[in-house]
Amino acid sequence: MNIPETDKKRVVIIGGGFAGLHLAKGLKNSDFQIVMLDKNNFHTFQPLLYQVATAGLEPDSIAYPLRKLFKGSMDFYFRLAEVEEVVSGDNKLKTSIGEILYDYLVIATGTTTNFFGNKELEKNAMSMKSVSEALDLRSLILQNFEKALLTSSIEEREALMSIAIVGAGPTGVELAGALAELKKHVLPSDYPDLNIDRMKVQLIEMSDRVLPPMSASASEKALKYLNELGVEVKLGEAVDSYTDNKIKLRSGNELYAGTLIWAAGVKGNLLNGIPESSVERSRYIVDRYHRISGYKNIMAIGDIGIMKTDNFPDGLPMLAPVANQQGAHLAKALKVNWDMNKLKPFEYFDKGVMATVGRNRAVADLGKLKFGGLMAWMVWMFVHLLSLVGFRNRLITFFNWSYNYFNFDKGIRLIIRPYKKAE
Amino acid sequence: MNIPETDKKRVVIIGGGFAGLHLAKGLKNSDFQIVMLDKNNFHTFQPLLYQVATAGLEPDSIAYPLRKLFKGSMDFYFRLAEVEEVVSGDNKLKTSIGEILYDYLVIATGTTTNFFGNKELEKNAMSMKSVSEALDLRSLILQNFEKALLTSSIEEREALMSIAIVGAGPTGVELAGALAELKKHVLPSDYPDLNIDRMKVQLIEMSDRVLPPMSASASEKALKYLNELGVEVKLGEAVDSYTDNKIKLRSGNELYAGTLIWAAGVKGNLLNGIPESSVERSRYIVDRYHRISGYKNIMAIGDIGIMKTDNFPDGLPMLAPVANQQGAHLAKALKVNWDMNKLKPFEYFDKGVMATVGRNRAVADLGKLKFGGLMAWMVWMFVHLLSLVGFRNRLITFFNWSYNYFNFDKGIRLIIRPYKKAE
Repeated sequence: MNIPETDKKRVVIIGGGFAGLHLAKGLKNSDFQIVMLDKNNFHTFQPLLYQVATAGLEPDSIAYPLRKLFKGSMDFYFRLAEVEEVVSGDNKLKTSIGEILYDYLVIATGTTTNFFGNKELEKNAMSMKSVSEALDLRSLILQNFEKALLTSSIEEREALMSIAIVGAGPTGVELAGALAELKKHVLPSDYPDLNIDRMKVQLIEMSDRVLPPMSASASEKALKYLNELGVEVKLGEAVDSYTDNKIKLRSGNELYAGTLIWAAGVKGNLLNGIPESSVERSRYIVDRYHRISGYKNIMAIGDIGIMKTDNFPDGLPMLAPVANQQGAHLAKALKVNWDMNKLKPFEYFDKGVMATVGRNRAVADLGKLKFGGLMAWMVWMFVHLLSLVGFRNRLITFFNWSYNYFNFDKGIRLIIRPYKKAE
Repeated sequence: MNIPETDKKRVVIIGGGFAGLHLAKGLKNSDFQIVMLDKNNFHTFQPLLYQVATAGLEPDSIAYPLRKLFKGSMDFYFRLAEVEEVVSGDNKLKTSIGEILYDYLVIATGTTTNFFGNKELEKNAMSMKSVSEALDLRSLILQNFEKALLTSSIEEREALMSIAIVGAGPTGVELAGALAELKKHVLPSDYPDLNIDRMKVQLIEMSDRVLPPMSASASEKALKYLNELGVEVKLGEAVDSYTDNKIKLRSGNELYAGTLIWAAGVKGNLLNGIPESSVERSRYIVDRYHRISGYKNIMAIGDIGIMKTDNFPDGLPMLAPVANQQGAHLAKALKVNWDMNKLKPFEYFDKGVMATVGRNRAVADLGKLKFGGLMAWMVWMFVHLLSLVGFRNRLITFFNWSYNYFNFDKGIRLIIRPYKKAE
């Protein structure tokens, strides 16, 4: 890897997501040598992936080159690599670009889509956890519309135009809302020879309400917004199978959709070499100082870790603010070398949760303050704009949002690389 | 294809490039039914592809959805399709999505990279004629830098960092200039552990000057600019082979580069079914009314046609303005049904040629006015901004250019989909 051996302790961070980024920022120009490994050369702003998939934002405005972010940092080394194994006995990592020793190892690999072992769904459904998956989704939705023009079967045409989303968490709700807006404002003029009224946007949720992690009032409002936008919400339903545009639900009911988006679960990107005993629900069990159970110098932060606190006995939620705060806290822990006189156990400062459904429609639970509508939507936009990495990305996103808002448009409906289904 | 049969005559346009676009615009809401076929659902602004390849612009700002462009047009049908054969006896096209009859057929398929039969170069060199090829190029250049970090061989490292461009036409010169600026302003801080001074940007040209189609004074100025930027220009040289990062030149000299970009020739995207007798130098011979030699209702416009005029006895140059003007002229010809009282033979109104080398450095031949430097660069930017399709694209491009100018940056250095060499 050509990384110099120095007197400094080496911290290897796997993953340049929210957690890894905040840790590396916290350690910038400190007494550590920092090595960051990621399989992409950019940070992805995951909360806005759904806007890439629905032609509202270009992929390049929610991705930020990691090298640019750490420009000028002392003793910072980025390498494009995939990690194959942790050999903790030797304080060593095996990777796609060779081996590397560490003094401290931080796993911040996040999560990937969880199909819970259903191979058929894994093959036929789309996931949306990376920029290229979001681009594939954008392509497939548009390709299906182009295909719908060609068939003489009304049933097939309607299925090709229709989309089903499994899982009504924030991702599912935001996707459903954005697709409903495409249906309302964009697709009728793009496809004048299709009857867009027959397009269905269907949201399938196993529990009895949308946005299950949010307050009851947020769920209620979000459901109302989804209904207003024409989204067909199926609560208390789960998907058994999906082939040839047909979705079989556990209840026996059937739905049709040319595109099925799976937003119903995630699992941690676990690494080889860390035993099962340190894992719970596919994530690493960590103490309040981010150390993985059974290790002193291997830590996990962000979604890949499961940290239980008094307020969150089941584990902290998998949210960007948790990852950010954990990254910053771990930087402090490393700098004071876990000196308990100088370090308090990690406590999540809960700023609240928000989800947007469509223009002027969002819901927010900010502590005891629960509100919706235009106000929540504006707060949502403001917070997301400020959280984007980089001035360029913020300005381009702001411009796109303004443009889309005033023109009722989502301008980036390009099939740059057609999606080809894996065989 | 589900395109209704009407009383109107049907014009089938193959290709949504400059020529096809201007023809379709000219025929908007006329007495024809228009069917446009393209293998992409967007128009590509080819003159700026090199900025996508060099991380200066996002792909989405030089691509424009064709459906959006013809929103609200009467009797306009777009279909995503590849044409397989022209059956002119039956006035019929065979395509990837079925057959279609035409009254008039307009071939506006443009050109593709011409490797002149060298299979090895075709496999190992990169071309840059489409958005996805430009993205592949961006990925490969960045991937090679990541790889350069890993090798312990100095020779290999320098080869991986180095880039060679074959062909010093506008594309080659503009690419070389943009890469030299990446070398100067961006890569040193992105790769502090590489010695970027050892990166070579090499421009190989068979003739004895750069920009051979332009004036002698433009060639001279462009060469001076390229030298100032540190581009190594090899004139009177041609490439014989390229394997394992080694370029063998016809003179026997050798160069090294991890990326070889082939901008040394194009050939027409010819269709099956039109005989060789209508083809010259891989393009369709057309009369001054765009009709392909031997046909009355099959026309060719833009780069795919070769039209000879008194001022251009070898054929008009392959430039966007020619394509634009031909598209508009053919629309007129169709509307007056080739009534020679109302139609003059096509005449190219030559607005001049420009090429940009780098910031504040461009050359322009505008009629008798030949100039360079800051003024030419500003004119170049102004003309290209105005020529971009769509307000959104213009504004985002303008913002990117301003941002890049003031920050000496090219911010979009993302490897979103790694480039994998074909086997």
